[in-house]
Amino acid sequence: MAVSNIRYGAGVTKEVGMDLQNMGAKNVCLMTDKNLSRLPPVQVAMDSLVKNGIHFQVYDNVRVEPTDASFMDAIEFAKKGAFDAYVAVGGGSTMDTCKAANLYASSPNSDFLDYVNAPIGKGKPVCVPLKPLIAVPTTSGTGSETTGVAIFDYEHLKVKTGIASRAIKPTLGLVDPLHTLHMPGQVVANSGFDVLCHALESYTAIPYHMRSPCPSNPITRPAYQGSNPISDLWAVHALRIVAKYLKRAVRNPDDIEARSNMHLASTFAGIGFGNAGVHLEMAVVHVLCAADPVTERHPDPASSAVSTVSALCLPGADIRSARTQDAGPMLADRLRKFLFELDVDDGLAAIGYSKADIPALVKGTLPQERVTKLAPRPQSEEDLSALFEAAMKLY
Amino acid sequence: MAVSNIRYGAGVTKEVGMDLQNMGAKNVCLMTDKNLSRLPPVQVAMDSLVKNGIHFQVYDNVRVEPTDASFMDAIEFAKKGAFDAYVAVGGGSTMDTCKAANLYASSPNSDFLDYVNAPIGKGKPVCVPLKPLIAVPTTSGTGSETTGVAIFDYEHLKVKTGIASRAIKPTLGLVDPLHTLHMPGQVVANSGFDVLCHALESYTAIPYHMRSPCPSNPITRPAYQGSNPISDLWAVHALRIVAKYLKRAVRNPDDIEARSNMHLASTFAGIGFGNAGVHLEMAVVHVLCAADPVTERHPDPASSAVSTVSALCLPGADIRSARTQDAGPMLADRLRKFLFELDVDDGLAAIGYSKADIPALVKGTLPQERVTKLAPRPQSEEDLSALFEAAMKLY
Repeated sequence: MAVSNIRYGAGVTKEVGMDLQNMGAKNVCLMTDKNLSRLPPVQVAMDSLVKNGIHFQVYDNVRVEPTDASFMDAIEFAKKGAFDAYVAVGGGSTMDTCKAANLYASSPNSDFLDYVNAPIGKGKPVCVPLKPLIAVPTTSGTGSETTGVAIFDYEHLKVKTGIASRAIKPTLGLVDPLHTLHMPGQVVANSGFDVLCHALESYTAIPYHMRSPCPSNPITRPAYQGSNPISDLWAVHALRIVAKYLKRAVRNPDDIEARSNMHLASTFAGIGFGNAGVHLEMAVVHVLCAADPVTERHPDPASSAVSTVSALCLPGADIRSARTQDAGPMLADRLRKFLFELDVDDGLAAIGYSKADIPALVKGTLPQERVTKLAPRPQSEEDLSALFEAAMKLY
Repeated sequence: MAVSNIRYGAGVTKEVGMDLQNMGAKNVCLMTDKNLSRLPPVQVAMDSLVKNGIHFQVYDNVRVEPTDASFMDAIEFAKKGAFDAYVAVGGGSTMDTCKAANLYASSPNSDFLDYVNAPIGKGKPVCVPLKPLIAVPTTSGTGSETTGVAIFDYEHLKVKTGIASRAIKPTLGLVDPLHTLHMPGQVVANSGFDVLCHALESYTAIPYHMRSPCPSNPITRPAYQGSNPISDLWAVHALRIVAKYLKRAVRNPDDIEARSNMHLASTFAGIGFGNAGVHLEMAVVHVLCAADPVTERHPDPASSAVSTVSALCLPGADIRSARTQDAGPMLADRLRKFLFELDVDDGLAAIGYSKADIPALVKGTLPQERVTKLAPRPQSEEDLSALFEAAMKLY
């Protein structure tokens, strides 16, 4: 298990300049997206850099739901800048883009596909030293500040894939709940379901000692290594926080206690799934998000899709007072109720899919072995078809 | 919060050579003590180094309960060897000695007291880069594989103190339950109480936001930063494991499930207290262990002393079904019962102390501000005197 350095507290973003100074950084790249670049999280970070006399350049061209092309653009910027440290202020897209930029700028002769997950890329292990990267999450969903994963849409194949290596994990995450106070309720709901799914999936992933083949050298161990006693702890704890605080966080933007706890839960779930992995639901999400129709039809396909399918593909969760065989249906009922109460889109149909899309969705899911193999049950093409059909409408 | 890289599993020690190769190490220092140097844990590690063609030198002169002099000896060895990586195979003494050797060999012009905790040393922050250190714990007590702390007896003042910095934390801990199968039951009991005390103390330490003074720069934040939502999680989980498995682990050396779980609990509690800190009981232990009479009279003063005083100085633990004001006495009763059932030494008297020693013990406890200040209650000289008196006999 590889874990993360996290500093948590209201206002910790103000310390980023001192942290970079302590790391000896002299030429820093601050990455964000155009929308955030004018908002308080980025302003606070920039003020801290200025105050501590750190020279920096801003890259605000991060694409929400990044692609190989948008990654490349950031990588070019990083190569030219010859930076000695990075700061990513934003959601998962920004943090993931920054990880990729740091990686390829540190390994300038590598081909882009060298480090991309097989079978799409070559999945080579990362053996070059990277520069320090400080991640400042501004949403409570991805947990990317804790993980060694960078996800993007590979446009040529219309599929979401990524780079997964402990080497690209941020050096430090500054988890500052002040950044969550501006989020609209529906973003809190959708990203909160993202947290819930990360936690459920890492908890129900196959145990680490049952994953095969067992790599002969630790460096080839996948970042998603299966559930283990440590990731379980984070996953279950994140689930408890979601159960206790998500509704409050959605309904009241000023409930700093609830929003702070959801921000922490996102980090906790990230530590869990960053070690254990996610599986079937995420494989499905990757297909949904990369398919053109959705990105055009829905402003936030990732979160909606996560919520949409989560109720259906997660048997085996821990419900101790019930018989084991009842746990799956009970969990599904509970999730459906939760989705309904928080007014999350009702199934794939609500975000623009129809039965006619199912064969393409199944076809896109099948090659995502990195995650599908961690599911507690193997899935046939028919299983996946039935899953997508049942996911058209949920509550 | 800074956390740790841990790999857990029966046989992971065999991978240490590959890990070092992956880190690019060419000239490694393997530290252990004379007793262990002929036993399987060290043999397995050495075989792995040989098999992977790693050049290494063995330093087996680690002193159990290290002193400034024994640290110096290891530091000299490290300086001469110009190593590019370290492996520590042993208990807390070995891991702590190796951390110190790595630190001072990486900072060769520093005076020994520069990095030692104030007020005994200067408590300077560590700004030099250290070499990779892989820790392989062979006991289930200290959690040193997860912490940035190295403890030693400062002989001149007859007091236990240490070096505390995130910079000296091992790069990787290989937590291999196979190493626990040879431990005698009484060692399992005493080191298990060490785990219990680490967890209880980090859980009851004052919250991180109430510790004062608040440092103006993150680099001067102490390694023991007060309890926080993350350390609480580790602490409570470690307590649950202790409650479930300690008795079984003590009574049956072949109970691999129980011993594996206690080995993990030690690591979990280490992550907890390595972040949150320990407080009064550990301050007391540091005095007890450094006092000559004990080390002469008892083969394992640290663990016994921990167990001995733990029942008395830990009010405020979480017992939800009781009234808050009953929690302290209930916890004390529970711990007394546990100590009795596992046949742990019955109080300070049983390990050779008498009332006449109390003034000296109090005097030694008072300067340990680094830990005493984290206690949930301030302590006067009279409080400490009463505490030691009550701790003479426990059950």
